[in-house]
Amino acid sequence: MIYPGPVARLIEELGRLPGVGPKTAQRLAFHILATDIHEVQRLAEALLAAKAQTVNCSVCHNITDVDPCRLCRNPERDRQLVCVVESPKDVAALERSHEYRGLYHVLHGAWSPIAGVGPEQLRIKELVDRLKAGGIVEVILATNPDLEGEATAMYLSRLLRTLGVKVTRIAHGLPVGGELDYAADDTIARALQGRREM
Amino acid sequence: MIYPGPVARLIEELGRLPGVGPKTAQRLAFHILATDIHEVQRLAEALLAAKAQTVNCSVCHNITDVDPCRLCRNPERDRQLVCVVESPKDVAALERSHEYRGLYHVLHGAWSPIAGVGPEQLRIKELVDRLKAGGIVEVILATNPDLEGEATAMYLSRLLRTLGVKVTRIAHGLPVGGELDYAADDTIARALQGRREM
Repeated sequence: MIYPGPVARLIEELGRLPGVGPKTAQRLAFHILATDIHEVQRLAEALLAAKAQTVNCSVCHNITDVDPCRLCRNPERDRQLVCVVESPKDVAALERSHEYRGLYHVLHGAWSPIAGVGPEQLRIKELVDRLKAGGIVEVILATNPDLEGEATAMYLSRLLRTLGVKVTRIAHGLPVGGELDYAADDTIARALQGRREM
Repeated sequence: MIYPGPVARLIEELGRLPGVGPKTAQRLAFHILATDIHEVQRLAEALLAAKAQTVNCSVCHNITDVDPCRLCRNPERDRQLVCVVESPKDVAALERSHEYRGLYHVLHGAWSPIAGVGPEQLRIKELVDRLKAGGIVEVILATNPDLEGEATAMYLSRLLRTLGVKVTRIAHGLPVGGELDYAADDTIARALQGRREM
């Protein structure tokens, strides 16, 4: 045993985190050992509290500490609009843009045959139930502009159109502040296809 | 507030770890939220246990869960040899080589005027006290082969020679399995300077 038991166990546990290899786990462990005990306690408590005090919202499936979540409860949000995203991180990204005032629906993933994720692993049935309950006029598909996100959007657009709602997809194009020269070819192609009259 | 309180606090606490930026902290937090509660509890307990159940060995200053540490207690180790290293990680690295059977002394850093670390911040006084107590014949300086490690080794070699012990420095040269073509110029220079008759 090279490290004392408690240190070896900490390195092992840290090494389970995504993107943390053995060297990083060792570096983090020695940082923890050199850190004030109160700061380490704060981290340990934050880990447990985040887990214990949050659930998925029973309406939109976003992560929340109150159910239904604050977005679903908010009387100022437009209840006719539902924006479909892959993960809670995407809700946060859209909220930061201050552009959207409707509700959300978090799928918790995207269609990926390689990763073994089919439509039945996503919160699609729950989305269909929300639409059947009525009152929703437009569904905005905001899954990622990658292979899995596009496949999911394609699948959902076909499925949801049968329910009589308007289904739209967020625009693809050049990122604001970017340079044409640095944009990927398919981004430029999508920007041209999506051009609008000025 | 984009994330519920407990999630925002977890992201904040994870973001204090070295090398963990806001994006990584967010990714780790969502991994934690998707992880089984028992696994999160194991991580939280490992953090607290590593902190609560370890101290620096009162003899060699290596991290340990018993004082003096297992290396200092081990009757099979050669008590005439002390290997001086910068950190507990270095003790682990040397032990993995199975080449060394003496004792250690952990400085907890290296001389770095830029980082404001002088000899008085290192466990040098404690090393001198160990040598004055007698019984030690050779001190092997195994600080890192970088600017700070070399400066520390230079400083220690001058200081310790006055105490009548043999002071040696671990060899610098080509890494085993490496290629001459890929080695840095100063590594090649040190390998030539340190050449030995075959």
